[in-house]
Amino acid sequence: MTVTHPQGFRAAGVTAGLKTSGRSDLALVVNDGPLAVAAAVFTTNRVQAAPVVWSRQAVADGVAQAVVLNSGGANACTGPEGFADTHRTAEHTATALGISAGDVLVCSTGLIGERLAMPLLLAGISAAAPVLSADGGADAATAIMTTDTVPKTVVVERRTPEGQPWSVGGMAKGAGMLAPGLATMLCVLTTDAHVDAVTADTALRAATAATFDRVDSDGCMSTNDTVALLASGASGAAVSLADLTDAVTAACAALARAMVGDAEGASHDIAVSVVNAETEQAAVAVARAVTRSNLFKAAVFGNDPNWGRVLAAVGTVPVEVAAYEADQLDVAINGVQICRAGGVGADRALVDLSSAREVHVEIDLHAGAASATVWSNDLTHDYVHENSAYSS
Amino acid sequence: MTVTHPQGFRAAGVTAGLKTSGRSDLALVVNDGPLAVAAAVFTTNRVQAAPVVWSRQAVADGVAQAVVLNSGGANACTGPEGFADTHRTAEHTATALGISAGDVLVCSTGLIGERLAMPLLLAGISAAAPVLSADGGADAATAIMTTDTVPKTVVVERRTPEGQPWSVGGMAKGAGMLAPGLATMLCVLTTDAHVDAVTADTALRAATAATFDRVDSDGCMSTNDTVALLASGASGAAVSLADLTDAVTAACAALARAMVGDAEGASHDIAVSVVNAETEQAAVAVARAVTRSNLFKAAVFGNDPNWGRVLAAVGTVPVEVAAYEADQLDVAINGVQICRAGGVGADRALVDLSSAREVHVEIDLHAGAASATVWSNDLTHDYVHENSAYSS
Repeated sequence: MTVTHPQGFRAAGVTAGLKTSGRSDLALVVNDGPLAVAAAVFTTNRVQAAPVVWSRQAVADGVAQAVVLNSGGANACTGPEGFADTHRTAEHTATALGISAGDVLVCSTGLIGERLAMPLLLAGISAAAPVLSADGGADAATAIMTTDTVPKTVVVERRTPEGQPWSVGGMAKGAGMLAPGLATMLCVLTTDAHVDAVTADTALRAATAATFDRVDSDGCMSTNDTVALLASGASGAAVSLADLTDAVTAACAALARAMVGDAEGASHDIAVSVVNAETEQAAVAVARAVTRSNLFKAAVFGNDPNWGRVLAAVGTVPVEVAAYEADQLDVAINGVQICRAGGVGADRALVDLSSAREVHVEIDLHAGAASATVWSNDLTHDYVHENSAYSS
Repeated sequence: MTVTHPQGFRAAGVTAGLKTSGRSDLALVVNDGPLAVAAAVFTTNRVQAAPVVWSRQAVADGVAQAVVLNSGGANACTGPEGFADTHRTAEHTATALGISAGDVLVCSTGLIGERLAMPLLLAGISAAAPVLSADGGADAATAIMTTDTVPKTVVVERRTPEGQPWSVGGMAKGAGMLAPGLATMLCVLTTDAHVDAVTADTALRAATAATFDRVDSDGCMSTNDTVALLASGASGAAVSLADLTDAVTAACAALARAMVGDAEGASHDIAVSVVNAETEQAAVAVARAVTRSNLFKAAVFGNDPNWGRVLAAVGTVPVEVAAYEADQLDVAINGVQICRAGGVGADRALVDLSSAREVHVEIDLHAGAASATVWSNDLTHDYVHENSAYSS
């Protein structure tokens, strides 16, 4: 059901022929209202794909009625011609739906530096529009997959204090954070909550900061990342900012976790939690340094609880970013305190990394009361294989 | 000849038994003067091994007469006991050589978080002192190897304007920069130039900033990195700061290049040059972002000239760090201009990465006149294997 679980939405996923595999590659998500509220966050990469440039403008007024998404081509680094292709995509979608092009968000994912096969793409939109349906969410989620092995969807159901039901639905593709791995992270969230554009935008930014921004599969950031939230208001439920933020955060957290679990070539999902930091930002910075250590990530692949590599990574965080004393650092891996006060703790042989996919690393800075968790993956032969054999 | 090529130095390399392989693992380098000038630079990691803490203090007065180096153990994250071990190492060396412990620099490399086998280490020092010789440089260079497949040495010969000969010799181990790869980077440089401590320190800092600081094998920084320069003055040649800097830089550049060429598991050495940057720092920042992209490094392993991944990495550098316009970026790989003005350039099929180990990437920012090159390696199956199977 995914993006079509909330009331007021239809979706479709079809095969336009952009993917050489012949799998479905074009998705439409349409908001039938009564509201046409929209918000979106985008990659912070300075090299931005044409659809990101387009969608950022289109959503600036807090209004959008549809999202058109394609896999099989990122339309990034394609110059003015690529932007014209995105523009035509929005116009064609708008015509097919009887709406304004300025209310169509466009998302693309796939190879960088190649023009899209526009005749195929436009024909795909024409084919998708007539089959839009309130049951089309699953097809849409499948059509945006690239190296994903499973579609990623979520539904969060809530009630207002008065008992009125409303929900958030979502679909996502990708293997990383808002700075994801091999290819782009795209996510469309829908809700039938009755909210205004400022509320939607504020909730979405808070939710992504606490979820997708804390997933770092391989430290690489795409040119195409987009997370969009559409609100139809169709449930009639007036929802507070706090409640919307909570539900959207729950949806994003589930999708983010699903992306980590499906990251390219990974054999372990690694949660790096930093506790007793001076600030939450300091905790995130320390956790991110560890999740970006190729040496530590390779050690996890080898089922080696290598706390020395954890400390070496923590030590690269500048003192102005995170306060701590090196001789006070504690590290636990899967609950075993193998590093105490910056030195040897419990026997590393007590740590079993081989029997579960999840690995939990906890770093105690002894510098405050804030904490944060960043998710990542191990560095594996399969990661190297997929990213050396695949051209994106 | 290496560190014993300049006049006034003796060295030795012996087997203390610290390495399970049974290979030599203890080196001594002694400056017989007449000068005992010394300078050193160390890792900027906040988690610092005991020998780094010791040597930083010992060299602070610009005087040192010997360096004792061991492989087979990093003596990092070993607490006050580990520091006491380093202190004993310096004392024992000093006694064996008839000098002061405060004039002995100590360097260690190997596993983090384990105490050194001190009886073996001290016996090794006792065995090395009597065999110190002016021909011992090669033995010393071999004894500091860990995963290095070849010893890394250099000799730079110069003459003063008056024709008086002097030289710089050096040895190094490691697979990366001052923030190296699997294990530590250690480097000892010697010179018979007649210079003071301030000149030696200034020359060494300038040389390492332009060489070792611009090698980034895998973005990971060790707890033990040390580069030391000893000056004996034995040639009698009074050398200017400019001339010493030039010669030490040449020596460091050769050793840095040798480390890249021997980096763990690498199949390509990658030179990322950024040209027409506003400042040299901006050029370094952009180059470093590319050398830290696992996606790009994996693509090079697959002989894929993936300029899209280059641009995606360049795009992560904040505007306050490096000025450029994304739609003006040019990228050439091995001389083929495959990206022009942020878009498609020459046919990528024209780029051949498979026939040579060296890969040259040139990024033109069109934002100024400064440039810099950072060296790195590709991300390979062997890197993952070595760093998941090896515990450090």
